[in-house]
Amino acid sequence: MGSKQPDRRKFLKSGAALAGGLTMGVVEPAITQAPADEQSVQIPPQEFPNYSSPELVAYGLRSHHVQSVREPVNGRPSPDEYGLLFHIGTPLQDQMGSITPSALHYFGTTRGSFVPDIDPATHRLMIHGLVDRELIFTMDELKRFPSVTRPHFIECAGNRSSPRHRRIIESHGMTSCAEWTGVLLRTLLEEAGVQDEGTWIVAEGVEEVKGASSLPMAKAMDDILVAYGMNGEPLRPQQGHPLRIVVPGFEGILSVKWLRRIKVVDRFYMTYNDYGHLRQDPDDAALSYQIGPKSVITFPSGGQELPGTGFYEVRGLAWSGGGAVSRVEVSTDGGESWFDADFRGTPQPMAHTAFSFNWTWDGSETVLMSRTTDEIGQIQPTRAQFEGGQDNSIQPWRVESDGSVHNGLS
Amino acid sequence: MGSKQPDRRKFLKSGAALAGGLTMGVVEPAITQAPADEQSVQIPPQEFPNYSSPELVAYGLRSHHVQSVREPVNGRPSPDEYGLLFHIGTPLQDQMGSITPSALHYFGTTRGSFVPDIDPATHRLMIHGLVDRELIFTMDELKRFPSVTRPHFIECAGNRSSPRHRRIIESHGMTSCAEWTGVLLRTLLEEAGVQDEGTWIVAEGVEEVKGASSLPMAKAMDDILVAYGMNGEPLRPQQGHPLRIVVPGFEGILSVKWLRRIKVVDRFYMTYNDYGHLRQDPDDAALSYQIGPKSVITFPSGGQELPGTGFYEVRGLAWSGGGAVSRVEVSTDGGESWFDADFRGTPQPMAHTAFSFNWTWDGSETVLMSRTTDEIGQIQPTRAQFEGGQDNSIQPWRVESDGSVHNGLS
Repeated sequence: MGSKQPDRRKFLKSGAALAGGLTMGVVEPAITQAPADEQSVQIPPQEFPNYSSPELVAYGLRSHHVQSVREPVNGRPSPDEYGLLFHIGTPLQDQMGSITPSALHYFGTTRGSFVPDIDPATHRLMIHGLVDRELIFTMDELKRFPSVTRPHFIECAGNRSSPRHRRIIESHGMTSCAEWTGVLLRTLLEEAGVQDEGTWIVAEGVEEVKGASSLPMAKAMDDILVAYGMNGEPLRPQQGHPLRIVVPGFEGILSVKWLRRIKVVDRFYMTYNDYGHLRQDPDDAALSYQIGPKSVITFPSGGQELPGTGFYEVRGLAWSGGGAVSRVEVSTDGGESWFDADFRGTPQPMAHTAFSFNWTWDGSETVLMSRTTDEIGQIQPTRAQFEGGQDNSIQPWRVESDGSVHNGLS
Repeated sequence: MGSKQPDRRKFLKSGAALAGGLTMGVVEPAITQAPADEQSVQIPPQEFPNYSSPELVAYGLRSHHVQSVREPVNGRPSPDEYGLLFHIGTPLQDQMGSITPSALHYFGTTRGSFVPDIDPATHRLMIHGLVDRELIFTMDELKRFPSVTRPHFIECAGNRSSPRHRRIIESHGMTSCAEWTGVLLRTLLEEAGVQDEGTWIVAEGVEEVKGASSLPMAKAMDDILVAYGMNGEPLRPQQGHPLRIVVPGFEGILSVKWLRRIKVVDRFYMTYNDYGHLRQDPDDAALSYQIGPKSVITFPSGGQELPGTGFYEVRGLAWSGGGAVSRVEVSTDGGESWFDADFRGTPQPMAHTAFSFNWTWDGSETVLMSRTTDEIGQIQPTRAQFEGGQDNSIQPWRVESDGSVHNGLS
């Protein structure tokens, strides 16, 4: 079993836990030797991208030493004959903080690899159906409305762990979190004037098969965003440039990308994107949209390696479709005992929240787990307790005595 | 004079202010015409980057329609013979939310365009001087320490407005805000054990002239970050990859990039980066490091254009080296009357906070301004009140009756 949580206060005061725990073997011998100025870095003048070139001064790149990338994680046939569901996962194993870099945000398409190229100057959003006044907006017009900026996760309903997954990008990579900027859909619907019988909306994007989703009016008038910005810049093409909806806390497929039309209707309409709810009645389908409370340890996670015994900061993410998370607990002994983890900043509603937990590993085999509780009191279930639907069950990571980390389900 | 702030509640309830104000001329005629599916977007299959290519699936790009870039804004001779101070500004005119995209984060170098290329696998950080135990860390070792993730702005002390500036990128572009991840310097100093006479540190980066800064121990033991992450990924090269310090609220030049050494010393040392304080005694130099309360309207700002009368959301940023901002006021009549603006989210200490203000423009010439107050009660000064040092004075933007926006200082 791994040992229990070190007392953080003591650790910070004495420095003893860390100094004892960290693998300082390579460090100690170097102490008597002052670093020569030329020694600590190598700067080969022409063997790397020129970060001072006019192009990279205008718009920067990451270092060529940084190789973290997205990967296709869950290709499977789509329910029609047109191609594959294409799922590109975020490398959560490299996660820092709670925001996913835009270049690494997960994405899925319902038609293979189709990513539209849309000129924002000619793009329009139409709002029609059961409204007093049909409206068509240019992008410039949308940007004149009062706007909001909010962090929200988007998670694919197909984001589920299985014993065959070796790494977290496979088991959990289809969730990401960005700071979205846009107009509340409510603002636009109030401009159009929703008629009494308008109880649902159908949001339609520009995909070949007309990616569309049905959403209940209560959600539309609550917190759905018509977003044009993401992490401080316009949406990226794979994330719906120039316009998408973000449906906080609901299954990712409902956050329709490349948005061009919102129709106010009087019932649930079965659309291509609703195939996951084919066997449900409309009320149940709508209710099942919400993602449950979920958390996962991103470090140490499957495929990673602990270089030795001693101190580690266990890191992870927690989120819920039901609101802000209120608590994360970590177990380092396979679920026998649980301790509260620390949050990074204040948990935001329907947003990834980073957590951390101080742990000293004694070198014995053990299993790490995290579980979260959200502000409405929902608790993340174990895999045994999990009753089906969108998988939010607890993910165990098994640490072997050689420091290798494996999926605890396998 | 522009008219006063519309009542937001009334605006949202009736929709009247917006519908009356927005330029809906191009919209109304289209209402009777249902959009043909093929009509609203153009998708030229081979005339744009292939966002479905393996490279862009692995690591995404922004849309080729998005052209916002950084620009050199304030080149001037450096105090030695080696080259230019090189200042690359953030396009604040395109700002969304409070976080600056990493590719657009401002940067300055003290030696022309030099950006080191550092392999994180071989990079080391040394802590030495007046400590009980000198330490050298690899990047992997640093990442094992307890970490924090915090949003902080970095602003160059040379970020000042003048009548000759036409656009906000020139007058204010040398400030940006990122979510930084790293270890508190305090944690590392406590590992090394600071001796009683250790009252200052000198932090040294890998620039040709050894960019270095002197910082008081009180700040070092408070909130200085030894950062390896930025906006969810490793630091970018222009931002100090793989390691920098972030000195919250202090002049940007003190946030030493490409960090390789921290020496604990017993006095203020004059370094290359401290040339701005040449004519000050050490105590004053240290005290003058802190950035005052500052705000600026990013839209509408110099060089932008209002397409017509009616509703606009005035948007901007506010920040302070003294803590979180507590209030932002906007004037739409050249400073005669002031109204409270709304914040985006909760203001964080030493971080950009986005604000917005609902405004209906009646078409007459007027001047827009913002001013902020921080949590310790400091109020942003007018240009007349401003007493020199780092410029945090109120920026006026003059809106002419043709909708063009100009620097109100000129």
